[in-house]
Amino acid sequence: MNINERIAALRSVMRDSGIDAYIIPSGDPHQSEYPAAPWKGREWISGFTGSAGTAVVTMDHAGIWTDSRYFLQAETELASSDFELHKMYNQFSPGYTIWLSKNLAPGSKVAIDGPLFSLNQKTKFESILSKRDIELVITDDVIDAVWNDRPIVPLEPVFEHDVQFAGRSRSEKLEDVRAVIKEQHATHHLISTLDDIGWLLNLRGYDVEFNPVFVAYCVVGLNSVDLFVDSSKLPADLSSKLAEDNIQLHPYASIYDFLKTCDQSCKMLIDASSINIKLYESLSKAHRMSGPAICRDLKAIKNDTEIEHFRKVMVKDGVALTHAFKWLEDTLDERTVSEFEFSNKLAECRSQQEHYYGESFAAIIGYKGNGAIIHYRPHPDTSAQIHKQGILLADSGGQYFDGTTDITRTVTFTPPSDEEKNAYTRVLKGHIGLSMAKFPKGTNGAQLDTFARQHLWSDELNYLHGTGHGVGFFMNVHEPPQGFAPGSSQRATTVHEIGMVSSNEPGYYKEGHYGIRIENLIVVQEADNEGFLEFETITMFPIDTELVEKSLMTEAEINWLNNYHSEVFEKLSPYLDEIHKTWLARKCESI
Amino acid sequence: MNINERIAALRSVMRDSGIDAYIIPSGDPHQSEYPAAPWKGREWISGFTGSAGTAVVTMDHAGIWTDSRYFLQAETELASSDFELHKMYNQFSPGYTIWLSKNLAPGSKVAIDGPLFSLNQKTKFESILSKRDIELVITDDVIDAVWNDRPIVPLEPVFEHDVQFAGRSRSEKLEDVRAVIKEQHATHHLISTLDDIGWLLNLRGYDVEFNPVFVAYCVVGLNSVDLFVDSSKLPADLSSKLAEDNIQLHPYASIYDFLKTCDQSCKMLIDASSINIKLYESLSKAHRMSGPAICRDLKAIKNDTEIEHFRKVMVKDGVALTHAFKWLEDTLDERTVSEFEFSNKLAECRSQQEHYYGESFAAIIGYKGNGAIIHYRPHPDTSAQIHKQGILLADSGGQYFDGTTDITRTVTFTPPSDEEKNAYTRVLKGHIGLSMAKFPKGTNGAQLDTFARQHLWSDELNYLHGTGHGVGFFMNVHEPPQGFAPGSSQRATTVHEIGMVSSNEPGYYKEGHYGIRIENLIVVQEADNEGFLEFETITMFPIDTELVEKSLMTEAEINWLNNYHSEVFEKLSPYLDEIHKTWLARKCESI
Repeated sequence: MNINERIAALRSVMRDSGIDAYIIPSGDPHQSEYPAAPWKGREWISGFTGSAGTAVVTMDHAGIWTDSRYFLQAETELASSDFELHKMYNQFSPGYTIWLSKNLAPGSKVAIDGPLFSLNQKTKFESILSKRDIELVITDDVIDAVWNDRPIVPLEPVFEHDVQFAGRSRSEKLEDVRAVIKEQHATHHLISTLDDIGWLLNLRGYDVEFNPVFVAYCVVGLNSVDLFVDSSKLPADLSSKLAEDNIQLHPYASIYDFLKTCDQSCKMLIDASSINIKLYESLSKAHRMSGPAICRDLKAIKNDTEIEHFRKVMVKDGVALTHAFKWLEDTLDERTVSEFEFSNKLAECRSQQEHYYGESFAAIIGYKGNGAIIHYRPHPDTSAQIHKQGILLADSGGQYFDGTTDITRTVTFTPPSDEEKNAYTRVLKGHIGLSMAKFPKGTNGAQLDTFARQHLWSDELNYLHGTGHGVGFFMNVHEPPQGFAPGSSQRATTVHEIGMVSSNEPGYYKEGHYGIRIENLIVVQEADNEGFLEFETITMFPIDTELVEKSLMTEAEINWLNNYHSEVFEKLSPYLDEIHKTWLARKCESI
Repeated sequence: MNINERIAALRSVMRDSGIDAYIIPSGDPHQSEYPAAPWKGREWISGFTGSAGTAVVTMDHAGIWTDSRYFLQAETELASSDFELHKMYNQFSPGYTIWLSKNLAPGSKVAIDGPLFSLNQKTKFESILSKRDIELVITDDVIDAVWNDRPIVPLEPVFEHDVQFAGRSRSEKLEDVRAVIKEQHATHHLISTLDDIGWLLNLRGYDVEFNPVFVAYCVVGLNSVDLFVDSSKLPADLSSKLAEDNIQLHPYASIYDFLKTCDQSCKMLIDASSINIKLYESLSKAHRMSGPAICRDLKAIKNDTEIEHFRKVMVKDGVALTHAFKWLEDTLDERTVSEFEFSNKLAECRSQQEHYYGESFAAIIGYKGNGAIIHYRPHPDTSAQIHKQGILLADSGGQYFDGTTDITRTVTFTPPSDEEKNAYTRVLKGHIGLSMAKFPKGTNGAQLDTFARQHLWSDELNYLHGTGHGVGFFMNVHEPPQGFAPGSSQRATTVHEIGMVSSNEPGYYKEGHYGIRIENLIVVQEADNEGFLEFETITMFPIDTELVEKSLMTEAEINWLNNYHSEVFEKLSPYLDEIHKTWLARKCESI
C-alpha cells in the first residue's frame, strides 16, 4: 500500500466505527520520544520519519503537525501523498486540537488510542474540543486493523548494567524510590517510562535504536517489585539474579489486569505527565495517587561514580573525534567524502574505544545548506559530498557502558565570510556564557537559556530550538526533566541541581547556506559561595577558532576558550600518537 | 482585644464548629493584592501588616507565612503575640498547606472562607491535604463572628475616567471583550477582579488605598452588562450615563444569586486563577466554561493614547522628583530629615503637578540599613533621620488621571565604599542590560529576568524579589500578568508583548547596612527586524553616578547611561526654573 492507500484504508475503518478524526502521535504506551517498531504508526500512515510530529486524519484531510526542526524534512517526505504539513511554531502547543475544534462540526467524534496518550494530554484535548461540543473517544488501536505487516514488540535480550558503572545497585535505588513512596504516604509506584525502568533495575536492552532500553512496565511496592516484561527476553542467569532480588516477573501485557486487581490497601503513586490513559483507567480511583515521577527525578542527579565515568568517557570520545576529524581533513585533500561516510567514520572511531555500545543517536552531518536542517540525517544514497570548502556541522554521540556522549562541532575548511564569523562568534559567546554562568540555587532552564541567546538576540538573530537537554548515563541521550529552553516547557521550568548533566548547544542557521552549532555537555557543581552553582564542561574536543571574530569577544570569553583548549590538549594527548598529537596541538592553539 | 485575645476568641469559634485549623489569607473576594478594609482579617487577627502573607491558626499554634520581603517587618510586628513567623523562601509555594499536612492528625478539618480563595488554590490545597486524609472545608467567614468592630464594605463614590486619558470608550472595550467571548464560543464572561472592572468601564473609585478601584462584580454578555455595586456609590449623572450604555445595576452581594439563576443557554467564561470558590460554586456545571482572564490580557496591552500619556506623565513625575530631591539635599545641609518627612515631600511635589490623584503606593524611603528592608514603609513616629551621609533608597510613585508612576533611586550623600560601588554598578548593569535587551516575540519574563541578574550572579550576589511587574494606567501599580521574575510564576511565564508597561527594578541588599535598587518603567516596542522586540525607557529622572564604578561598565552601558541623562535633561529642563535646571544639569553630567 502506498501512503494514499493507507489513508483510504484507515478512513474506511473510521467510517465503520463512526469516527470523524483519528490522531496518531509519534509516541508509544511508555511516552517514549523514540518508540520501538510496533509503535511507529505515525511513520507508517504518513511516511514522515521525524522524531516529533503528529498525524491527524479526518474524512477530507490528512495532516502532519510538526515543529521547525522538521519543516524541510516533512515537506520532502510528504510531497508524494495527500498528507499536508501544518507548521507548529511552538513544539508544545496543541495545534492540531485547535485545528480540529475549528474544522470539525459540533457533535463530531475524535478518537485516540488510549495507551498512546498521557492523562495530561487527554485533559488538554477535552478542554479544547468540548467547547465546540466535539467528543473525545478513547478507542482501541484503529491503525492495527489496516497495518498488515506491523512489527511485533521486540524480543531482544535484556542485559545487566554493571554497578561499577552505575554507581548504585538496584537494591539501593529501590530503597531510594521507597523512601519517596513513604514520604508521599503511598504504598506503590507505577513506572511506565522505559529509561526509568532500565535505570532503576540497572538493566539495559536493544528494543529501540540508539536508546539502550527494553519494553516493560514496573511497579515498586514497599516490599515488592513487579516487572512486566516478556520472560523470553531475560537470559537464565539474569532471571535468577532478579529472583534473588525479589523481583517478580509478569508477562508484558498483563500490567492492565494487574492494576485492575490491585490490593485493597494499595495507594499507587502515578505521574500524570507520563502515565498513559489506559494505565490510568485500569486503576480504580481509590488506588490512584498523583505524585512525582520519582525515578526521573532521582536519575537526573548523577551520582559521583557516574560523573567520574562521564569525565573519562569524554576523553575517549575526544580521542575518537580527533581520529575522525583528522581523517576527514586528510581525505578531503584527495577526494570528497559523503556526509554519510563521515557519519560512519565517526561511529567507527568511537567503536575502537573501550566499553563502546553504539551511537547515541543518528549523527547529523550537515554540509553547507544541509547544516541548516536542524535534525538532518544523511542517507547513503542522497547525502551530499563534502568538499574542502565551506562550513560543516557535525553532531554525533556515542553510547558507552560507562557513559553517553553528545557533541556538535562546526568547522570551516576555507576562510569564512564576515557574516559567518559574526554568527559563529555570537553562538560561541552564548555557549561560553552558559558554561561560565554562576547562578543561585533554584534557577531554571528558561532563566539560564538567556545566557546562550543574548548575543545573538542583540544582533536580532536567534535559533528555533532549545539550548540544551538532559543526558542519560548509558541511557537516552535526551533525558528529562531539565534543559535550557525558552517558554514554559518542562525543560524551561525545571530547576538545575548539583549533579545534573545537560547539553549546551546554541546555534544559528541560514537556510540553504550553513548551520552553526557548538555543543558540549556540562554538569552542575557547587560554586564558591553557598547558595550558588556553576557548570563544569566535561566534553573534550577543540572548538574551531578559524570562525572566531576575536574583536567581538570579551577578555573573559577569550580566556575561557584558551583554557578550555589547554585542558583538551592535556587530557587527550596522552592517548594519541605523535601525528594526531601534532594535529590536536594546532587545533588547540590560543587565540 | 489584643492579638492573643483575638486568637483565643477565634479558637473558641473553631472549637464550636469542629474546625482544627483556619487559614486567613491577605486577599479579598476579588483576589486583590491590597484588600479594602473589611477584608483585612489577616492583619486584624495577627497584627502583621505586610501586603503578602497568610495566617494559620490551629488549636495549639498560630503562624504567619510570608516571604523574604517581610521577614524583618513580621518579626517586629509579631513580637508581642503568640504568632510565629514561618519564612517562605519561595513566595508562590504553598508552605502552610504542607505544614498543616505534617502537623495535623489524619481526619482533621482545615477550614477556609470560600470567597477569599481561588479555585486553583482550593485544588492545590486539596491535593496536598487529602494525602494525609485531612479534609478541606469551605466555611462561612469564621473571623466575622469574633471581629466586632469590623469595617463595612466602603461606600466611597465611583467616578468616571475620561476617555481622553483612557484612549478607548467603554463601548469599544466591551466590544473587544465580546469578540473574545464569541471566539471562545461562550455567551458571558464573569469579571471579579476590581482593576479589570474599572478598566473595562472607564470607572475608578476610592475603596482601596493607592489603588483607584471600587468594590464590584461584573458580568458581560453578548448583549448585556450587569454591574454589581452598591448604587449609593454612583452619582446620579454617572448612573444615567451607565443606563444609556445599557449597563444594568444590581446590589453588590446579589452576584451569587444572579449566577445561581442564570439563563438556560448561558455559557459563562470564568478564569480559574482569579475567580473565588463561592462564585465558582454558584454557577452550575452546565453554565461554567474555563477561559482566559479577558480584561487582564486586553488591559495589559496599553493603547497608543495611554502610552503617549505615560510618556508625558513621566516628565511631570521627573519634575516633581527634581524638586523633592533638591529640597532634600538643601535641607540636609541645615538639619536632618526623617524618612517619613521625605516621603511626604515626594507626595507634596507630585501633588503640584496637573491631574494628580494620589500616591500609587506607600513610599519606601529607606536610609542605610532600612533600605535593606525590601518593603519598608517609614512611620511618623519611628522612621529614621536622614543625615547627609551614606546611602538612601527612595521608591515612590504617583497616580495621575493620565498615568501611574513607580520609580526607585538610590543616592549617596558621601563617597561610597568599593563594596557599595561594586554592588550598585552590578545592579545598574543589570538595569541597563534589561533596558537595552532585544528579544524575539514569544520571550517571557523568566528569560528576560536573567538580563537584570547576570552581573550580580557572576559575583555570586543576588536579590530575593522579582525584577519587575506590570503597571496599570491610572490603575494598580502592580498589574498582572507580565513581569520579570525567576521561576514559574505568572510574571515569569507571561510573554512580553508590544504595548506592555513594566517596571525594571533590580536591586541588592545588605542587611543592616544599605539597600540598592534602580527602577524605571519600560514599554515594549517593535525592534528593527520583524519578529524582534525591545524596550523604551519612559521614566525620566537621573540615576546617581557617584555610586558607579566605571571600570566595570562596558562602552555600550556607558553610552546608554549618558544618552539617558541627555534625554532626561532635555525633557525635564523646559519645566524647571534656573536653579533647578542647574541642579539637574549637574546630576545629568556624562560619566
